[in-house]
Formats: sequence, structure tokens, C-alpha cells
Amino acid sequence: MERIRVAITQGDTNGVGLEIALKVFSDPTMFELCTPILYANPRITTYHRKACDLTTNFTTINHADEARPDRLNVLVVSDDEVPVQFGQESADAGKQALLALEAAITDFKYGKVDVLVTAPINKHTIQGDGFHFPGHTEYIQSSVGEGKEALMVLMNETMRVALLSTHLPLAQVPQAITEANILEKLQLLNVSLKRDFGIEKPRIAVLGLNPHAGDSGLLGREEQEIIAPAIERAYNELRIHAFGPYAADGFFGAHQYAHYDGILAMYHDQGLAPFKALVMNDGVNFTAGLPLVRTSPDHGTAFDIAGKGVADENSMRQAIFAAMDVYRNRMRFDEANQHPLEELYHKRRENDNPNRRPPMNFAQRDEA
Amino acid sequence: MERIRVAITQGDTNGVGLEIALKVFSDPTMFELCTPILYANPRITTYHRKACDLTTNFTTINHADEARPDRLNVLVVSDDEVPVQFGQESADAGKQALLALEAAITDFKYGKVDVLVTAPINKHTIQGDGFHFPGHTEYIQSSVGEGKEALMVLMNETMRVALLSTHLPLAQVPQAITEANILEKLQLLNVSLKRDFGIEKPRIAVLGLNPHAGDSGLLGREEQEIIAPAIERAYNELRIHAFGPYAADGFFGAHQYAHYDGILAMYHDQGLAPFKALVMNDGVNFTAGLPLVRTSPDHGTAFDIAGKGVADENSMRQAIFAAMDVYRNRMRFDEANQHPLEELYHKRRENDNPNRRPPMNFAQRDEA
Repeated sequence: MERIRVAITQGDTNGVGLEIALKVFSDPTMFELCTPILYANPRITTYHRKACDLTTNFTTINHADEARPDRLNVLVVSDDEVPVQFGQESADAGKQALLALEAAITDFKYGKVDVLVTAPINKHTIQGDGFHFPGHTEYIQSSVGEGKEALMVLMNETMRVALLSTHLPLAQVPQAITEANILEKLQLLNVSLKRDFGIEKPRIAVLGLNPHAGDSGLLGREEQEIIAPAIERAYNELRIHAFGPYAADGFFGAHQYAHYDGILAMYHDQGLAPFKALVMNDGVNFTAGLPLVRTSPDHGTAFDIAGKGVADENSMRQAIFAAMDVYRNRMRFDEANQHPLEELYHKRRENDNPNRRPPMNFAQRDEA
Repeated sequence: MERIRVAITQGDTNGVGLEIALKVFSDPTMFELCTPILYANPRITTYHRKACDLTTNFTTINHADEARPDRLNVLVVSDDEVPVQFGQESADAGKQALLALEAAITDFKYGKVDVLVTAPINKHTIQGDGFHFPGHTEYIQSSVGEGKEALMVLMNETMRVALLSTHLPLAQVPQAITEANILEKLQLLNVSLKRDFGIEKPRIAVLGLNPHAGDSGLLGREEQEIIAPAIERAYNELRIHAFGPYAADGFFGAHQYAHYDGILAMYHDQGLAPFKALVMNDGVNFTAGLPLVRTSPDHGTAFDIAGKGVADENSMRQAIFAAMDVYRNRMRFDEANQHPLEELYHKRRENDNPNRRPPMNFAQRDEA
């Protein structure tokens, strides 16, 4: 079996992205697992290598085809002389990050790389002609999503937390709590747990929106009126083993997450604050639901420690491992489900409920 | 020095309250630290003792004055024959919980006990003629608050998290984010850190409302328009060392809480989900800002394990210790600040800003 070709983007020029990428590939056993292609400006890469006193070697290439499996390949996305100003926001720094991302996405489209691991960007300086998104997830969904909806999943060894709403102001979160939204995200998460993680019958916990999950209506009615009915429909109509809604504080406090394969949180901080509190340095951000397998470390550019050589590379390492795991699981799943009697199944479901929107392709395959 | 008289309420008849209270006082060294008075129905107490196979002895008394320092005193709040139905909601069970709470509050008013530790109640069955509140905190504020505003603080050895809004539906949280609210809670927290915890110059971290604390306005404007200006005013006008606003996920993920004496979270789950995820079994809920020092374990009635003898009593033990610590710190602080030149200070502040609402009494004493 050929090694998986892992595209890694450099991220913001002035952050810790290149440092953690170089640190991961200072370990030669990594090359037994994958063929890494770091999309970066080699001048900037060299600058980081020196500043952080690292010894990782790399070879520059101009096309992904030239990548060799026994080394760190740096694919030259630009050779501009860009000043590195650790910890500073700069338009030039953002431009390099975008060039790396664009080149990696293009190579994925042409089948040159298998998975994408992105180093952190600065969400302000990357904005420009080619980028008008709150983050990587939305950019990738738009560029290689093929019309599919992405699902943001934060994961480590012990849990996977998916978000119903991601980069929404808190005041807009309640409007996003609709039965359709919950069903859609539950379906995405359920399929991902099966296809990307090889779990046959995933158990999914759904969190409530309000304190104490509404406390039987005393503290808000979304649980009773929207979330609980959605969970019931998910089970009855989609055969998704969803449970809840659970109060977020008790759920994480009593370590209930250990009993579920996936968790659906209603909004960003509800899922991410306890997730990040619990994980040490092995958190990974995984974009589920898209044809491209994309992961990233669960931290940002870390401007406060950039260029000092003290950044912990473990989250980046886990992001690379996770991308490869998901890629292999998907191949295995798709191979096992090549003949899913799609038509037959499709028709039966349509008869059950003629108003139901057609399930997505891999959902059909999956359920068959 | 006389031992501190600790009033402990039995909590819901069908929950774990009596079990954890009895377990704590199975250790005779507890009696060297305090004189405990358990406000309870002795029949129910005996039932729990047997069901959970506990050996803790207790003596029943009819008035707090009869409490003896070398034993667990059970003050008889009712001698009704109430059936114990572990894990069940029942109006009778709620009534016993309320009787215990009312008796303890009355004894506090008459100076018979020094501090109050409440075991968990069921928020539905306790409602009735004497109780129309979302929880203990609001009931206690109303009954012994003397018009003061309570501040809910969750604490353990490593952090203290205060909540700007507590039992509010999430959709109502954004309206609660006002400069006046933030300043009031910051002032309460600041005073509590000084007076209740003996910290001379408390450092307080303030969390943002939106994901990534609004990301410079991309994901919501409350941080820029309300929270940051409030922090600045708190420093300039009230000399409160407040910092932020910080993104909740990064704040807890990077263990930044270790650098602050207190944290002000904007809403319930933002503070409590990561807090409970991080604390093991030593979390304590402390009601700051009121004349009565009241604590409780940070868990609920735990109906699923009630009556089985497996409940962990450590949170209750820590709640008792915390109440005594706060009580001692307050006495020490108030003694040291008996002559605060209140008038002088008061006048100067009023001149600074004539529209400013007068500070609360102990805030003045504190700042002097």
C-alpha cells in the first residue's frame, strides 16, 4: 500500500505553524507512515528553522509529483522575500498563508495529495480577494465541498464534539436551533462516525441549549419544543442512536462523554470550552462531511510564543495521524459498501415520508 | 475561639444529600473543626443511614442552642412519616427539604448558626407557598440578602468562576450583557476575593460573550462595545484589576485560569461546563455578596445513584471547609477594616463622578 500523501499548509507566516510542522518531522519514523508535502515559502521555513533552533531537514519541490516518501518535501508556493515578524499581524504574512492553502487545495482537486492538514492562520490578515470566510472550514467547504455541508468536529482519543453552530455571534445561536439543522448535523455526525471512524452503531449525545438543559421548561423551551423532538425523529426516521438533550455542565462534569461515540453541542463555546479544558495537547479539529479529509491542530497562531521554539507540536502530530486514520477508514468503508442496493433503499425511504429531503449520497450507502 | 456553627440542610428527601452529610461526619476529626447542625427529619435521616449502610451517629435536638460540639446534631425540622422513594420526584420529599431550609435560615437570622451549607434540592418539588425561585441562591438572596445582590461563584482549590447571568435561558443572555451588570458583578467579585478569600489585590479575568471573544468584531460586537469598556471603567473608576475579555475555549484550554484569582463568565454553561470538566470531586458553589455565608456541593440530587451508598461526599466536605474558611476570612477582614474613614472616601468618589450610584457598604469599607 502506498503511503498517504499528506498536504500540510504553513499557516500564518508569523505564528507557530512552521515550527510545529518542522518539529513533527524531526522524527524520522513519520516518513514510514506518510509522504508529507509542506506547502510553504522555503525562505520563511528556513527562517523559522533557525529562529527555533531546529534541525529538521527538508527538500524543496515545485510540483507535488516530485514528492519523495523518505523526507519532508517543501512545495514552493512562493519564493518572495517576506520579512518574518513573529507575533505580528501583517498582510504579507497572511498572503503567504493563503498561497499555501490555495496550492494545497488545487493539488487535492487534481488528485496529487490525499489529505489536508492546515496550520493556524490569522483570520484577519488572510482576508482578501481569494478569502472571505471566518475560517478554514468555510473556505474548504466552499472550494471543494461539492455543495455538501461541513461539520466541525473537535476530537482527541477520548471524545468527538461536533458543533451545530460554529462561528456565530451568541445572540444568533437561538435562531440556529431548528429541527432541520439538528437533523442535518446529526446525520452528518452519524455518517462520519461510521465512515470516518469505523463505528458500526454510533451513540450520539445531544446537548441542550439552556442552563440545566432548560430544567423541564423552567429555563427555556428549546429543549422541549425543538431539540427533544429532533432527537426522537432522528431515531424514528433515520435510525440514528441519539440521546439527550443533556445539560452541558453536568455532562462534562460527570464524564458522561465517555459513554458516547460523538457529542453534538449547540454552539461554539458550549462544546469547545469544556473540550479544550479536558484535552491536554492532543486536540484535533476535523472537518467532517466533505470529500476532502481535513484536520488541523485545535490551537491558533499562538503569537505570544511564536519564534521562541517552545510551541508544543503534539496537536499537529495528532492532526496528521487523525487525517490518515480517517482516510484509511473511509477507503475501507467505501470498499465494503460498494454495492449498497441504493435504488431499492432509496425508494422505500421515500415512500415512508414523501416530503423528506433526499439523503446525501454517502448517507444512503451508509445506511444500506 | 469557639467552633464555627455550621448549619447543613438535608436537601431533597429522595436524593443523596443525607448520605453525603452522614459520610462527612463519620470522620470524628470534623468535630474538632466545627459544630455541625444538620437540619433534617430524623426518620428520613435514619432511613438513609440504614439504606446506605453507614455508621455515623447523631443526636437529635429541638433548638440550635442545644447543639453540642462533639457530635453530629440533627435539628428536628419535622417528625412526619414521609416515605423515602430514592430517585423519585415527590411533593412530600420537596416539603421536607423546604422545612429544613426555612428552619436553618430562621436560625441564622437569630444568630444561632454562623454559616449555611445546603444539600441539593429538587427544583420542581420544592416549589410551593414558601418557595418560588429557580434555586437556593435566589431564595437566600430574597430571605436574608438585606437588599443585596448575590453572586454565584463556583470554586475549588485552583479557580473561582463567578457568573454574570445564572439561570437565564440562553436567548436572554445577550440582554444581560450591560456595562452596569458587568461593573456590579466585578465589584461583588472583587470585594469577595478580598474579604472572603483574603486576597489583597485580586486579579480578575473577564470572559467574552461570543466565540473567540468576538474576534475583533467579526463574530459579535458586545466585546468591543460593552465588555471591554466595562473592564476599562472598572480599572479606572473602581481600581479593580480586571483583564480581558478572553475567549472562553482558549482561556480554559491554555489553563490561563491559573493566573487569576477570579474569573467572571458571562453565562451559566460558559463558566460551569469547563469548570465542572476540570474539577474532579471538589467543586463548591459559593453564594458571595450576602451577609450569610452559604455554600453547597456543585452537584445535584443525583437521583440515579440515591440510596445506594456510592455517592462521593467530597464535594460536601469541601463545601463545609469553604464556608468555614470564608467565615474566618470575613471576620479577619472586617476586624482589620473597622475604621475605614468611610465618609471621607465616599465624598471623594462622589465628587469624581456625581452620577455614579453609591457603592455598597462593604465595598466602601473594602476600598478604604
